[in-house]
Amino acid sequence: MKVYIEPIGRLINEFSKLPGVGAKTAQRFAYKVVNMSKDEAKNFADAIINVKENVHYCSICGNFSEGDVCDVCTSRPSDMICVVKEPKDVIAIEKLNEFKGVYHVLHGTISPLDGIGPNDINIKGLLERIAKGGVSEVIMATNPDVEGEATAMYISNLLKPLGIKVTRLAHGIPIGTDLEYADEVSLARAFVDRKTL
Amino acid sequence: MKVYIEPIGRLINEFSKLPGVGAKTAQRFAYKVVNMSKDEAKNFADAIINVKENVHYCSICGNFSEGDVCDVCTSRPSDMICVVKEPKDVIAIEKLNEFKGVYHVLHGTISPLDGIGPNDINIKGLLERIAKGGVSEVIMATNPDVEGEATAMYISNLLKPLGIKVTRLAHGIPIGTDLEYADEVSLARAFVDRKTL
Repeated sequence: MKVYIEPIGRLINEFSKLPGVGAKTAQRFAYKVVNMSKDEAKNFADAIINVKENVHYCSICGNFSEGDVCDVCTSRPSDMICVVKEPKDVIAIEKLNEFKGVYHVLHGTISPLDGIGPNDINIKGLLERIAKGGVSEVIMATNPDVEGEATAMYISNLLKPLGIKVTRLAHGIPIGTDLEYADEVSLARAFVDRKTL
Repeated sequence: MKVYIEPIGRLINEFSKLPGVGAKTAQRFAYKVVNMSKDEAKNFADAIINVKENVHYCSICGNFSEGDVCDVCTSRPSDMICVVKEPKDVIAIEKLNEFKGVYHVLHGTISPLDGIGPNDINIKGLLERIAKGGVSEVIMATNPDVEGEATAMYISNLLKPLGIKVTRLAHGIPIGTDLEYADEVSLARAFVDRKTL
Protein backbone atom coordinates (compact mmCIF):
# COMPACT_ATOMS: atom_id res chain seq x y z
CA MET A 1 0.00 0.00 0.00
CA LYS A 2 1.45 3.33 -0.97
CA VAL A 3 1.76 5.80 1.90
CA TYR A 4 1.01 9.01 0.00
CA ILE A 5 -1.78 9.55 -2.48
CA GLU A 6 -0.41 10.43 -5.91
CA PRO A 7 -0.81 14.26 -5.93
CA ILE A 8 0.88 14.61 -2.53
CA GLY A 9 3.65 12.16 -3.39
CA ARG A 10 4.31 14.07 -6.59
CA LEU A 11 4.50 17.43 -4.79
CA ILE A 12 6.82 16.00 -2.12
CA ASN A 13 9.04 14.76 -4.93
CA GLU A 14 9.12 18.24 -6.48
CA PHE A 15 9.92 19.95 -3.18
CA SER A 16 12.72 17.51 -2.44
CA LYS A 17 14.53 18.77 -5.55
CA LEU A 18 15.14 22.09 -3.75
CA PRO A 19 18.60 22.51 -2.21
CA GLY A 20 18.90 21.19 1.35
CA VAL A 21 15.37 19.80 1.39
CA GLY A 22 15.05 16.17 2.51
CA ALA A 23 12.03 13.88 2.65
CA LYS A 24 10.74 15.20 6.00
CA THR A 25 10.98 18.86 5.04
CA ALA A 26 9.46 18.23 1.61
CA GLN A 27 6.57 16.52 3.38
CA ARG A 28 6.05 19.55 5.67
CA PHE A 29 6.07 21.87 2.66
CA ALA A 30 3.55 19.69 0.85
CA TYR A 31 1.20 19.69 3.86
CA LYS A 32 1.48 23.46 3.95
CA VAL A 33 0.40 23.64 0.31
CA VAL A 34 -2.47 21.22 0.92
CA ASN A 35 -3.68 23.56 3.67
CA MET A 36 -3.32 26.70 1.52
CA SER A 37 -6.37 28.26 -0.05
CA LYS A 38 -6.79 27.69 -3.79
CA ASP A 39 -5.76 31.30 -4.46
CA GLU A 40 -2.62 31.03 -2.36
CA ALA A 41 -1.58 27.85 -4.16
CA LYS A 42 -2.28 29.47 -7.50
CA ASN A 43 -0.16 32.52 -6.61
CA PHE A 44 2.65 30.21 -5.56
CA ALA A 45 2.51 28.22 -8.80
CA ASP A 46 2.23 31.43 -10.85
CA ALA A 47 5.32 32.89 -9.17
CA ILE A 48 7.31 29.84 -10.27
CA ILE A 49 6.13 30.03 -13.87
CA ASN A 50 6.55 33.81 -13.87
CA VAL A 51 10.17 33.65 -12.77
CA LYS A 52 11.00 31.36 -15.69
CA GLU A 53 9.14 33.54 -18.17
CA ASN A 54 10.26 36.96 -17.02
CA VAL A 55 13.78 36.55 -15.70
CA HIS A 56 16.32 37.02 -18.45
CA TYR A 57 19.99 37.90 -18.41
CA CYS A 58 21.11 41.46 -19.11
CA SER A 59 22.68 41.61 -22.57
CA ILE A 60 25.45 43.86 -21.23
CA CYS A 61 26.48 42.46 -17.85
CA GLY A 62 24.78 39.04 -17.66
CA ASN A 63 22.93 39.86 -14.44
CA PHE A 64 19.27 38.90 -13.83
CA SER A 65 17.04 41.31 -15.71
CA GLU A 66 13.39 41.71 -16.60
CA GLY A 67 14.17 43.54 -19.82
CA ASP A 68 17.04 43.33 -22.31
CA VAL A 69 19.29 45.56 -20.18
CA CYS A 70 19.25 45.48 -16.37
CA ASP A 71 18.48 48.41 -14.08
CA VAL A 72 22.09 48.68 -12.91
CA CYS A 73 23.49 48.98 -16.44
CA THR A 74 20.91 51.61 -17.44
CA SER A 75 21.27 53.82 -14.36
CA ARG A 76 24.93 53.85 -13.29
CA PRO A 77 28.27 55.15 -14.59
CA SER A 78 30.21 52.31 -16.20
CA ASP A 79 33.78 53.31 -15.38
CA MET A 80 34.07 50.74 -12.56
CA ILE A 81 33.19 47.13 -13.33
CA CYS A 82 32.84 44.57 -10.56
CA VAL A 83 33.39 41.04 -11.92
CA VAL A 84 31.47 38.26 -10.16
CA LYS A 85 30.82 34.57 -10.73
CA GLU A 86 27.02 34.44 -10.53
CA PRO A 87 23.99 36.76 -10.56
CA LYS A 88 23.39 36.00 -6.89
CA ASP A 89 26.76 37.57 -6.09
CA VAL A 90 25.44 40.82 -7.58
CA ILE A 91 22.50 40.66 -5.16
CA ALA A 92 24.83 40.02 -2.21
CA ILE A 93 26.88 43.12 -3.13
CA GLU A 94 23.83 45.27 -3.93
CA LYS A 95 22.48 44.57 -0.43
CA LEU A 96 25.50 46.44 0.99
CA ASN A 97 24.51 49.60 -0.86
CA GLU A 98 28.24 50.36 -1.00
CA PHE A 99 29.36 49.77 -4.59
CA LYS A 100 28.11 52.35 -7.08
CA GLY A 101 29.53 50.97 -10.32
CA VAL A 102 28.34 48.28 -12.71
CA TYR A 103 28.81 44.51 -12.77
CA HIS A 104 29.97 41.80 -15.07
CA VAL A 105 28.68 38.28 -14.41
CA LEU A 106 30.98 35.51 -15.67
CA HIS A 107 28.41 32.70 -15.15
CA GLY A 108 31.13 30.42 -13.86
CA THR A 109 34.82 30.34 -13.01
CA ILE A 110 37.74 28.66 -14.71
CA SER A 111 37.92 25.10 -13.41
CA PRO A 112 40.12 22.72 -15.42
CA LEU A 113 39.00 19.72 -13.32
CA ASP A 114 35.40 20.30 -14.44
CA GLY A 115 36.50 21.03 -17.98
CA ILE A 116 35.59 24.73 -17.74
CA GLY A 117 38.14 26.87 -19.55
CA PRO A 118 38.34 30.65 -20.19
CA ASN A 119 36.16 30.31 -23.30
CA ASP A 120 33.34 28.65 -21.36
CA ILE A 121 32.69 31.67 -19.15
CA ASN A 122 31.79 35.21 -20.20
CA ILE A 123 35.30 36.73 -20.36
CA LYS A 124 34.84 37.68 -24.01
CA GLY A 125 31.93 39.98 -23.09
CA LEU A 126 34.08 41.70 -20.48
CA LEU A 127 36.87 42.35 -22.98
CA GLU A 128 34.35 43.78 -25.47
CA ARG A 129 32.99 46.16 -22.83
CA ILE A 130 36.51 47.32 -21.97
CA ALA A 131 37.42 47.71 -25.65
CA LYS A 132 34.64 50.31 -25.93
CA GLY A 133 36.66 52.48 -23.55
CA GLY A 134 35.76 54.50 -20.46
CA VAL A 135 36.59 51.76 -17.94
CA SER A 136 39.07 52.90 -15.28
CA GLU A 137 38.96 49.99 -12.82
CA VAL A 138 37.96 46.34 -12.81
CA ILE A 139 37.29 44.85 -9.35
CA MET A 140 37.64 41.06 -9.25
CA ALA A 141 35.01 39.81 -6.81
CA THR A 142 35.13 36.10 -7.59
CA ASN A 143 35.03 33.75 -4.60
CA PRO A 144 38.22 33.25 -2.54
CA ASP A 145 38.54 29.60 -3.58
CA VAL A 146 40.97 27.99 -6.02
CA GLU A 147 38.76 28.53 -9.08
CA GLY A 148 37.88 32.08 -8.09
CA GLU A 149 41.52 33.02 -7.49
CA ALA A 150 42.63 31.41 -10.75
CA THR A 151 39.93 33.27 -12.69
CA ALA A 152 40.85 36.59 -11.03
CA MET A 153 44.51 36.01 -11.90
CA TYR A 154 43.71 35.03 -15.50
CA ILE A 155 41.54 38.09 -16.16
CA SER A 156 44.00 40.35 -14.39
CA ASN A 157 46.79 39.12 -16.69
CA LEU A 158 44.59 39.81 -19.73
CA LEU A 159 43.70 43.35 -18.63
CA LYS A 160 46.96 44.69 -17.23
CA PRO A 161 48.63 45.06 -20.67
CA LEU A 162 45.63 47.22 -21.65
CA GLY A 163 46.50 49.68 -18.89
CA ILE A 164 43.37 48.90 -16.86
CA LYS A 165 43.63 49.01 -13.05
CA VAL A 166 42.61 45.59 -11.77
CA THR A 167 41.87 45.14 -8.07
CA ARG A 168 40.78 42.21 -5.91
CA LEU A 169 38.50 42.21 -2.88
CA ALA A 170 40.50 42.12 0.38
CA HIS A 171 40.75 38.87 2.30
CA GLY A 172 41.53 38.65 5.99
CA ILE A 173 39.98 38.19 9.40
CA PRO A 174 36.21 38.76 9.33
CA ILE A 175 35.10 41.80 11.34
CA GLY A 176 33.83 40.80 14.78
CA THR A 177 35.92 37.62 14.96
CA ASP A 178 38.49 37.12 17.71
CA LEU A 179 41.94 36.19 16.40
CA GLU A 180 41.67 32.99 18.41
CA TYR A 181 38.64 31.84 16.42
CA ALA A 182 39.64 33.03 12.95
CA ASP A 183 40.28 30.20 10.51
CA GLU A 184 43.94 29.59 9.72
CA VAL A 185 43.79 30.41 6.04
CA SER A 186 42.14 33.80 6.66
CA LEU A 187 44.59 34.58 9.44
CA ALA A 188 47.58 33.70 7.27
CA ARG A 189 46.12 35.83 4.49
CA ALA A 190 45.66 38.72 6.93
CA PHE A 191 49.40 38.58 7.65
CA VAL A 192 50.35 38.55 3.98
CA ASP A 193 47.99 41.43 3.16
CA ARG A 194 48.81 43.52 6.25
CA LYS A 195 48.46 47.29 5.86
CA THR A 196 50.76 50.09 6.99
CA LEU A 197 49.06 52.25 9.65
CA MET B 1 17.41 50.69 -5.76
CA LYS B 2 15.60 47.44 -5.16
CA VAL B 3 17.86 44.44 -4.71
CA TYR B 4 15.74 41.80 -6.42
CA ILE B 5 13.97 42.16 -9.73
CA GLU B 6 10.21 41.75 -9.32
CA PRO B 7 9.72 38.10 -10.46
CA ILE B 8 12.51 36.86 -8.18
CA GLY B 9 11.36 38.99 -5.25
CA ARG B 10 7.85 37.64 -5.66
CA LEU B 11 9.02 34.02 -5.74
CA ILE B 12 11.23 34.55 -2.66
CA ASN B 13 8.19 35.96 -0.90
CA GLU B 14 6.14 32.87 -1.82
CA PHE B 15 8.84 30.45 -0.67
CA SER B 16 9.23 32.26 2.65
CA LYS B 17 5.61 31.35 3.45
CA LEU B 18 6.67 27.70 3.78
CA PRO B 19 7.23 26.48 7.34
CA GLY B 20 10.76 27.04 8.66
CA VAL B 21 11.91 28.91 5.55
CA GLY B 22 13.59 32.28 6.19
CA ALA B 23 14.83 34.91 3.77
CA LYS B 24 18.15 33.18 3.00
CA THR B 25 16.62 29.77 2.33
CA ALA B 26 13.81 31.27 0.25
CA GLN B 27 16.49 33.02 -1.82
CA ARG B 28 18.34 29.73 -2.38
CA PHE B 29 15.10 28.04 -3.46
CA ALA B 30 14.33 30.89 -5.86
CA TYR B 31 17.79 30.66 -7.46
CA LYS B 32 17.23 26.94 -7.89
CA VAL B 33 13.98 27.62 -9.75
CA VAL B 34 15.65 30.29 -11.91
CA ASN B 35 18.21 27.68 -12.92
CA MET B 36 15.60 25.00 -13.63
CA SER B 37 14.60 24.25 -17.21
CA LYS B 38 11.21 25.58 -18.29
CA ASP B 39 9.78 22.06 -18.13
CA GLU B 40 11.06 21.44 -14.63
CA ALA B 41 9.55 24.71 -13.41
CA LYS B 42 6.28 23.87 -15.12
CA ASN B 43 6.16 20.43 -13.47
CA PHE B 44 6.82 22.05 -10.11
CA ALA B 45 4.04 24.62 -10.57
CA ASP B 46 1.66 21.94 -11.90
CA ALA B 47 2.30 19.74 -8.86
CA ILE B 48 1.22 22.61 -6.60
CA ILE B 49 -1.97 23.29 -8.56
CA ASN B 50 -2.66 19.56 -8.88
CA VAL B 51 -2.46 18.96 -5.15
CA LYS B 52 -5.11 21.61 -4.54
CA GLU B 53 -7.37 20.25 -7.27
CA ASN B 54 -7.06 16.54 -6.62
CA VAL B 55 -6.60 16.16 -2.89
CA HIS B 56 -9.94 15.82 -1.14
CA TYR B 57 -10.92 14.39 2.20
CA CYS B 58 -12.39 10.89 2.44
CA SER B 59 -16.12 11.17 3.18
CA ILE B 60 -15.86 8.30 5.67
CA CYS B 61 -12.66 8.88 7.65
CA GLY B 62 -11.58 12.43 6.73
CA ASN B 63 -8.15 11.30 5.48
CA PHE B 64 -6.54 12.69 2.31
CA SER B 65 -8.14 11.04 -0.68
CA GLU B 66 -8.14 11.36 -4.46
CA GLY B 67 -11.70 10.09 -4.75
CA ASP B 68 -14.75 10.32 -2.50
CA VAL B 69 -13.60 7.41 -0.32
CA CYS B 70 -9.91 6.78 0.47
CA ASP B 71 -7.95 3.60 -0.32
CA VAL B 72 -7.77 2.59 3.32
CA CYS B 73 -11.54 2.75 3.85
CA THR B 74 -12.25 0.77 0.67
CA SER B 75 -9.71 -2.01 1.25
CA ARG B 76 -9.60 -2.78 4.97
CA PRO B 77 -11.84 -4.31 7.66
CA SER B 78 -13.44 -1.53 9.70
CA ASP B 79 -13.69 -3.22 13.11
CA MET B 80 -10.68 -1.30 14.49
CA ILE B 81 -10.68 2.49 14.17
CA CYS B 82 -7.55 4.49 14.94
CA VAL B 83 -8.47 8.10 15.83
CA VAL B 84 -5.90 10.77 14.91
CA LYS B 85 -5.76 14.54 14.87
CA GLU B 86 -4.63 15.20 11.30
CA PRO B 87 -4.23 13.43 7.95
CA LYS B 88 -0.46 13.56 8.33
CA ASP B 89 -0.75 11.39 11.43
CA VAL B 90 -2.33 8.72 9.21
CA ILE B 91 0.72 8.87 6.96
CA ALA B 92 3.07 8.56 9.96
CA ILE B 93 1.23 5.43 11.12
CA GLU B 94 0.90 3.96 7.60
CA LYS B 95 4.68 4.18 7.21
CA LEU B 96 5.03 1.64 10.05
CA ASN B 97 3.03 -0.92 8.08
CA GLU B 98 1.87 -2.20 11.48
CA PHE B 99 -1.75 -1.14 11.90
CA LYS B 100 -4.22 -2.98 9.66
CA GLY B 101 -7.47 -1.24 10.60
CA VAL B 102 -9.06 2.00 9.44
CA TYR B 103 -8.68 5.58 10.60
CA HIS B 104 -10.77 8.47 11.75
CA VAL B 105 -9.31 11.96 11.33
CA LEU B 106 -10.67 14.54 13.78
CA HIS B 107 -9.13 17.54 11.98
CA GLY B 108 -8.22 19.12 15.29
CA THR B 109 -8.29 18.47 19.01
CA ILE B 110 -10.40 19.99 21.78
CA SER B 111 -8.66 23.18 22.88
CA PRO B 112 -10.78 25.53 25.03
CA LEU B 113 -8.04 28.21 24.96
CA ASP B 114 -8.32 28.39 21.17
CA GLY B 115 -12.12 28.19 21.33
CA ILE B 116 -12.20 24.69 19.82
CA GLY B 117 -14.88 22.56 21.44
CA PRO B 118 -16.07 18.98 20.77
CA ASN B 119 -18.47 20.22 18.09
CA ASP B 120 -15.67 21.90 16.11
CA ILE B 121 -13.84 18.65 15.38
CA ASN B 122 -15.15 15.55 13.63
CA ILE B 123 -16.39 13.58 16.65
CA LYS B 124 -19.93 13.39 15.26
CA GLY B 125 -18.66 11.47 12.22
CA LEU B 126 -16.94 8.97 14.51
CA LEU B 127 -20.12 8.37 16.52
CA GLU B 128 -22.08 7.82 13.31
CA ARG B 129 -19.56 5.24 12.11
CA ILE B 130 -19.77 3.43 15.43
CA ALA B 131 -23.58 3.60 15.45
CA LYS B 132 -23.56 1.55 12.23
CA GLY B 133 -22.08 -1.32 14.26
CA GLY B 134 -19.20 -3.73 13.70
CA VAL B 135 -16.58 -1.67 15.54
CA SER B 136 -14.82 -3.64 18.26
CA GLU B 137 -12.01 -1.25 19.26
CA VAL B 138 -11.21 2.44 19.00
CA ILE B 139 -7.53 3.34 19.39
CA MET B 140 -6.98 6.93 20.48
CA ALA B 141 -3.79 8.08 18.72
CA THR B 142 -4.02 11.82 19.38
CA ASN B 143 -0.78 13.55 20.39
CA PRO B 144 0.47 13.18 23.97
CA ASP B 145 -0.07 16.88 24.74
CA VAL B 146 -2.77 18.52 26.86
CA GLU B 147 -5.24 18.91 23.98
CA GLY B 148 -4.60 15.40 22.66
CA GLU B 149 -5.05 13.83 26.11
CA ALA B 150 -8.21 15.83 26.77
CA THR B 151 -9.67 14.80 23.42
CA ALA B 152 -8.80 11.14 24.01
CA MET B 153 -10.44 11.30 27.43
CA TYR B 154 -13.55 13.03 26.08
CA ILE B 155 -14.09 10.52 23.26
CA SER B 156 -13.36 7.62 25.59
CA ASN B 157 -16.06 8.85 27.99
CA LEU B 158 -18.52 9.06 25.10
CA LEU B 159 -17.77 5.57 23.81
CA LYS B 160 -17.42 3.51 26.98
CA PRO B 161 -21.19 3.55 27.76
CA LEU B 162 -21.72 2.09 24.27
CA GLY B 163 -19.65 -0.95 25.24
CA ILE B 164 -16.81 -0.12 22.82
CA LYS B 165 -13.26 -0.99 23.87
CA VAL B 166 -11.26 2.25 23.82
CA THR B 167 -7.46 2.11 23.99
CA ARG B 168 -4.72 4.72 24.00
CA LEU B 169 -1.24 4.49 22.46
CA ALA B 170 1.40 3.66 25.09
CA HIS B 171 3.66 6.42 26.36
CA GLY B 172 7.03 5.85 27.95
CA ILE B 173 10.74 5.85 27.31
CA PRO B 174 11.54 5.88 23.56
CA ILE B 175 13.28 2.72 22.35
CA GLY B 176 17.03 3.23 22.11
CA THR B 177 17.17 5.96 24.74
CA ASP B 178 19.24 5.54 27.92
CA LEU B 179 17.27 6.18 31.11
CA GLU B 180 19.73 8.93 31.90
CA TYR B 181 18.75 10.87 28.79
CA ALA B 182 15.00 10.23 28.74
CA ASP B 183 12.93 13.37 29.35
CA GLU B 184 11.35 13.55 32.79
CA VAL B 185 7.74 13.47 31.67
CA SER B 186 8.23 10.32 29.58
CA LEU B 187 10.19 8.66 32.39
CA ALA B 188 7.48 9.50 34.96
CA ARG B 189 4.86 8.16 32.53
CA ALA B 190 6.89 4.98 32.08
CA PHE B 191 6.66 4.39 35.84
CA VAL B 192 2.91 4.98 35.95
CA ASP B 193 2.27 2.71 32.95
CA ARG B 194 4.72 -0.03 34.01
CA LYS B 195 3.86 -3.57 32.88
CA THR B 196 3.94 -6.85 34.79
CA LEU B 197 6.56 -9.19 33.35
